[in-house]
Amino acid sequence: MQAVLDYLKRNQARFVAELCDYLRFPSVSAQPQHKKDMRACAGWLVNHCRHIGLDARLCPTAGHPIVVAKTPRLAAPKRSEGGKPHFMIYGHYDVQPPEPLELWKTPPFAPRIVGRSIYARGSMDNKGQNFAHLKAVEAYLQTGTPLPCDLTFVLEGEEEVGSVSLAKFLKTHRAELRCDAVVVSDTDIPSPKHPALTYSLRGIIAFEITVRGPARDLHSGIFGGSVENPAMALARLLAQLRDAGGRVTIPGFYDDVAPLSAYERKQFARLPIKDCDLQKLLGVKKLFGERGFTPTEQRSARPTFEINGLTSGYQGEGSKTIVPAWARAKITCRLVPNQRPAKIRELVCRHIKKICPPTVRLEIEAGHGAEAYLVSPRSREAQAALRALEAAFGCPPVLMREGGSIPIVNDFKKILGADSLLLGLGLPDGNAHSPNEKFNLDCFAKGQAMSAHLWQELSRT
Amino acid sequence: MQAVLDYLKRNQARFVAELCDYLRFPSVSAQPQHKKDMRACAGWLVNHCRHIGLDARLCPTAGHPIVVAKTPRLAAPKRSEGGKPHFMIYGHYDVQPPEPLELWKTPPFAPRIVGRSIYARGSMDNKGQNFAHLKAVEAYLQTGTPLPCDLTFVLEGEEEVGSVSLAKFLKTHRAELRCDAVVVSDTDIPSPKHPALTYSLRGIIAFEITVRGPARDLHSGIFGGSVENPAMALARLLAQLRDAGGRVTIPGFYDDVAPLSAYERKQFARLPIKDCDLQKLLGVKKLFGERGFTPTEQRSARPTFEINGLTSGYQGEGSKTIVPAWARAKITCRLVPNQRPAKIRELVCRHIKKICPPTVRLEIEAGHGAEAYLVSPRSREAQAALRALEAAFGCPPVLMREGGSIPIVNDFKKILGADSLLLGLGLPDGNAHSPNEKFNLDCFAKGQAMSAHLWQELSRT
Repeated sequence: MQAVLDYLKRNQARFVAELCDYLRFPSVSAQPQHKKDMRACAGWLVNHCRHIGLDARLCPTAGHPIVVAKTPRLAAPKRSEGGKPHFMIYGHYDVQPPEPLELWKTPPFAPRIVGRSIYARGSMDNKGQNFAHLKAVEAYLQTGTPLPCDLTFVLEGEEEVGSVSLAKFLKTHRAELRCDAVVVSDTDIPSPKHPALTYSLRGIIAFEITVRGPARDLHSGIFGGSVENPAMALARLLAQLRDAGGRVTIPGFYDDVAPLSAYERKQFARLPIKDCDLQKLLGVKKLFGERGFTPTEQRSARPTFEINGLTSGYQGEGSKTIVPAWARAKITCRLVPNQRPAKIRELVCRHIKKICPPTVRLEIEAGHGAEAYLVSPRSREAQAALRALEAAFGCPPVLMREGGSIPIVNDFKKILGADSLLLGLGLPDGNAHSPNEKFNLDCFAKGQAMSAHLWQELSRT
Repeated sequence: MQAVLDYLKRNQARFVAELCDYLRFPSVSAQPQHKKDMRACAGWLVNHCRHIGLDARLCPTAGHPIVVAKTPRLAAPKRSEGGKPHFMIYGHYDVQPPEPLELWKTPPFAPRIVGRSIYARGSMDNKGQNFAHLKAVEAYLQTGTPLPCDLTFVLEGEEEVGSVSLAKFLKTHRAELRCDAVVVSDTDIPSPKHPALTYSLRGIIAFEITVRGPARDLHSGIFGGSVENPAMALARLLAQLRDAGGRVTIPGFYDDVAPLSAYERKQFARLPIKDCDLQKLLGVKKLFGERGFTPTEQRSARPTFEINGLTSGYQGEGSKTIVPAWARAKITCRLVPNQRPAKIRELVCRHIKKICPPTVRLEIEAGHGAEAYLVSPRSREAQAALRALEAAFGCPPVLMREGGSIPIVNDFKKILGADSLLLGLGLPDGNAHSPNEKFNLDCFAKGQAMSAHLWQELSRT
């Protein structure tokens, strides 16, 4: 084991250079013009996995390809079936769109190192994190240190667009992928001194509301006043869905929300983030959220209704005196354990249809959805993960809920029967999904050590 | 007078041919590549005015030249100063850009006559209309019929780009241009059987509201719930500015609105447009507007609060799970007589600032503004215009308010002290500012007769 840790220490500079190569691919899954870049990035990953000693292959899908890479001589798929334990490491090589480009200090796909941070789209979410695991396994393989378990990497290219192909892939490759647990590093820790196991995730539903009025943009002088303005109708609609106190006003929205236990609230209170720090980090004038909950609880354990985008009429310089023909809002709701996406979607749609005025046409387009996730922090695997975290980071880990969604963990549970261990390496100022995304190189190195320890801890009987 | 009318009747074919010459100039003021065409068109106009017996000159400006043409031996500038009455005829020789060209059935600057319509860019807006007045004056001059008044044509080349040079020109030529009234033919009539005097125009204020939240777009999973969503804050703000019944809810907004008289409402009821036709024309599911007013009143005599555009967050394909950093609305309010743009702007800003929550930063950027315009339909000049309309069209004229703005008429009032008589010759299907613009040749002929009668009627003591 020491040989593994030494190898990791010795090769950090090369690992960083390799990570830069990985980050140079503009692997934006949402934008059709990057289809070739997606394929190139996946191809690079397969080659890299083979190069470090894994059996890797590119698996085409209806969307972007999936990279599967296994430790050699995978014997039997499950410990219960007489083989070594088998763990899956999940990650994604696709990234969020980099727009708005003008806010990046340097180009999003030209990695740049400043101090102990590497700046690039995808550095933290998720290339840097899945690459840390690859480097830990490389250390085992290249030093000839026996792994106490079988490992399978599954690195997909559609995480940012709903993981549609992966869910199908899990079903068709269920036998090959059955495992004792899935390890996912795609979350944050509060600080490098607070390594964390995340035991719950929020779910999500996404949809678009389009309000249509006149057949075309109208002259606001000639016709304005005798026709509903679709942008105003949309604003009035949206305003009726959340109150001034931050509470969603859709009837039934909170009915199934699992209440927070006193134990959980106590754990959250241990987290080192202060309200004033959060306010500063976000650059807001004042924090805001549902009354009766701390900001930590609001953003990890309470459901939300968020507008992600608004589009209507003229958006250029100056003014254009029109009544726009239509207006659109992109919406996501974050969900918490026990809220079912289908039910919440139905409640939201029903309410919006009910309050939409008869003077406009309403279209609601459903997007992706995912359930919230919850795993007991007292399970055998969770305890093993906590030990690995402490060994790598040298300080006691904390327990967290995460406000984001990793929808695929629900599929891991449903299809493969495996719980997921969420062992994130991101920091709160990492700008995931924002301009100037960055990944901390200490977290990168400690993440590799954590991964190296993890296979030992998880494989103990 | 009969000689004038006979001359007009006898020369229609030549007039149409001359109008075609006028229309062949691609005098697009907004497009720099047409600067020479603008100059050529203005030069042609000056020559034409001289040819028919006017004293004409080309007046250079910082922008496109202004054509000024006067009836010979202009004595004293104002009736009150012992001279004949003096009237100004305002028009413009510049036209809207013809794009999109592919939607024109024949080229926009190759006039084509189909039935009783002449198709060309500028045919209705405004060359055909100002040419009708030129032909009426030609009839007086060429038949030796004494004009009971002095006339000055002011034909500008920047109407479609804001009349910037003309406002300055009025100030520097105030003494020369002082007059008893201005005649403007640049509006529509409901049909050739409903000749109209437009006695009021709406004013306007334009502004942009920007609501800023976090310093950058945030991950809606990681931070959503603990920070105000600027798009939601904007929607809630906008929703508080107009009620479900179409009434603007900004305190004081209606305070100065001149009420509609029973006489005016009776006049509007005579207009031939039906609600079902308007609904069909606009392509809306249902008409909508301030309760207690007809669609005609709503769109011409009542103020509005219109959202012209909305911008926030992600607007591309699919979804992006962010809390956007900011959200923006482009707004214009149409104003009606007695509402002052500066006061309304102040009321709107104050109210928005008052209701904006403390969790976001608010920015309001002021755009252009113009006062509404009203001339009494019972004034001596308006009554004279109504008589001229009836004599020329052979049926009783209607009174109209126009929902759009013609900012220059406020300058005529302020700088020259003259009211404007809006005696449009366009028809509602004339496609002004659109492909396949056309002008009705009966309106052209009747407009000439109306102009011929108008100078007699206006000059009666």
